[in-house]
Amino acid sequence: MRKIKAVVYGVGAMNTIATRMLLDKGVEIVGALSRSEAKVGKDLGAVTGLGELGVTISNDPAEVFKRTTPDVAVIAVNSYMADAVEQLRACAEHGVNAVTLSEEALYPWKTSPEITEELDAIAKRTGATLTGTGHQDVYWVNIVTMMMGTAHKIDSVTGRASWNVDDFGPEVAGDQQVGSSVTEFDKWLKSASRPPTFGRNVLDALVAHTGLTPTKITTTTRPDLAPSRMYSKALQAEVEEGAVIGFTDVDEIRTEEGPVFTFEMSGRVYMPEEGDINQWDIAGEPELTLSNGTVPTQITTCTQLVNRIPDVIKAEPGFVTVEKLPALRYRAFPLHEYVWGTR
Amino acid sequence: MRKIKAVVYGVGAMNTIATRMLLDKGVEIVGALSRSEAKVGKDLGAVTGLGELGVTISNDPAEVFKRTTPDVAVIAVNSYMADAVEQLRACAEHGVNAVTLSEEALYPWKTSPEITEELDAIAKRTGATLTGTGHQDVYWVNIVTMMMGTAHKIDSVTGRASWNVDDFGPEVAGDQQVGSSVTEFDKWLKSASRPPTFGRNVLDALVAHTGLTPTKITTTTRPDLAPSRMYSKALQAEVEEGAVIGFTDVDEIRTEEGPVFTFEMSGRVYMPEEGDINQWDIAGEPELTLSNGTVPTQITTCTQLVNRIPDVIKAEPGFVTVEKLPALRYRAFPLHEYVWGTR
Repeated sequence: MRKIKAVVYGVGAMNTIATRMLLDKGVEIVGALSRSEAKVGKDLGAVTGLGELGVTISNDPAEVFKRTTPDVAVIAVNSYMADAVEQLRACAEHGVNAVTLSEEALYPWKTSPEITEELDAIAKRTGATLTGTGHQDVYWVNIVTMMMGTAHKIDSVTGRASWNVDDFGPEVAGDQQVGSSVTEFDKWLKSASRPPTFGRNVLDALVAHTGLTPTKITTTTRPDLAPSRMYSKALQAEVEEGAVIGFTDVDEIRTEEGPVFTFEMSGRVYMPEEGDINQWDIAGEPELTLSNGTVPTQITTCTQLVNRIPDVIKAEPGFVTVEKLPALRYRAFPLHEYVWGTR
Repeated sequence: MRKIKAVVYGVGAMNTIATRMLLDKGVEIVGALSRSEAKVGKDLGAVTGLGELGVTISNDPAEVFKRTTPDVAVIAVNSYMADAVEQLRACAEHGVNAVTLSEEALYPWKTSPEITEELDAIAKRTGATLTGTGHQDVYWVNIVTMMMGTAHKIDSVTGRASWNVDDFGPEVAGDQQVGSSVTEFDKWLKSASRPPTFGRNVLDALVAHTGLTPTKITTTTRPDLAPSRMYSKALQAEVEEGAVIGFTDVDEIRTEEGPVFTFEMSGRVYMPEEGDINQWDIAGEPELTLSNGTVPTQITTCTQLVNRIPDVIKAEPGFVTVEKLPALRYRAFPLHEYVWGTR
């Protein structure tokens, strides 16, 4: 039984983790792609700190795909479909299955329909499967749909998640309005031109899974305020009590049949004891709740990118979103045993 | 598109709830079975308080199955395979799919192999599918295997669940040794002849799903003690601080490949603010946790019994345990649309 051949597409922090996991799971890395001049020409192992891998980083996807005929590309490059289309199209045109952590790719049918339909058509023609996965796959979609499966009647589904502004640099802290007053925040929000939230994609996937008919879709944004004087590592500055430490986007989809779906995504400076959360509440019969305590979002993004590979290789061709894939499972054995073996 | 035809097998507290849910989901109840002389001959609706249903409760499964040719039987009668085999065999012999809440039926391949293999053979011959489901399906197996799917490397999986002795009568309180001293408890435990725990079936299902090889299987039992003077509704008596209020069975399966699976099931008198819990921790990379707060176990048993019906009707014939079924999903529409329609 041969190994799965993978190309690592993007050689940043996420694919550095994913590359280690791929190797641990018996995947053969046959190529690596980056646009960074500092990385192209170097060995993937040297750049990721994993030791000599004999895989030279290239900036030519077409050449790499033709030469290596990989079973899958593992893409960790960007977040929005407008950008992600470049890597996904390259994969689709060469008949290469792809998993990407691009957040919008989780369920892009409503927010970027033209691009997604174009990619779906190319992939169906060449026999490739394209899937957006990552932390959001299980924690924001499939663990929620499974808990929904234990309800008799659902009135509402409400999710709450968060990320730490201080995990990123001063630019992101600025984007999140850290340090602003509420007045400044309100002024910024009125004139801000922002892309659709990823919470929207999460709710689109949940609603699509139920077969319910979306009617009204809204996004509102509220500032998160410092409960006391705080220090922001990203800003390298103190933030006064009552000042803005980030904000929460609240996406909501109402449905013709009644159930209301809400997702609150908060990007803010954390208090010392805080971590990323994942909490879901279902109102109806019965009342249900789920919490994953503190979630290591970056690691669970990489694990799902890797553990989804057998599902994606085996899936029908096209742009296949995760609510249509089988329940994700732990890969105790090399990944190829789940594709070509009896696991 | 015709409705699903169901027979309600057992007319107690659980199937009273399930009958209402079946009717809500557009299922046609074509028969009802009970061995209770007080119920046989009466209308199912009269006994369950759901109003005239035109379904007379019978004590003759063969006659009911032949006359009504149901698509599925919903069994809520007993807990162990040694008892459950009677109802499951009746279904299998008549080619009737069945869901049962019998706890051991969740994964009976190891604890009752002969009975299970016999039922599997009959069901395969007649084209029926037999499945044990209920609260344990999602909360103790499938939500756990899904969270495991977000791990890179698992060292251990540890679950904790509980049930309230006071939800039952004095007999169960006696079985749980409520009111005993620790010395009395230890003496009882040494000589007690107890059937395998249901935690064993849960762990068997989890390990089977991973494909790992079980090596050592143990069950240990420890008393739960009153943290202060408590009142037991089941005993209708006070229990002194330090006295036994129930006990916790700790099942453990070690595997050849390394990961250790543990499930702690506690049946005890609750403090006023306590409820049934469901908590799972995965140690490895990364560390993961899940809690469902307070779980309404009886309701989630009935919802899963009902919501699993389309999966069971569509499954291959045989004794099909839940770790092999598709991810359970919410049924927003009549159940037959998931079987014969495009949902």
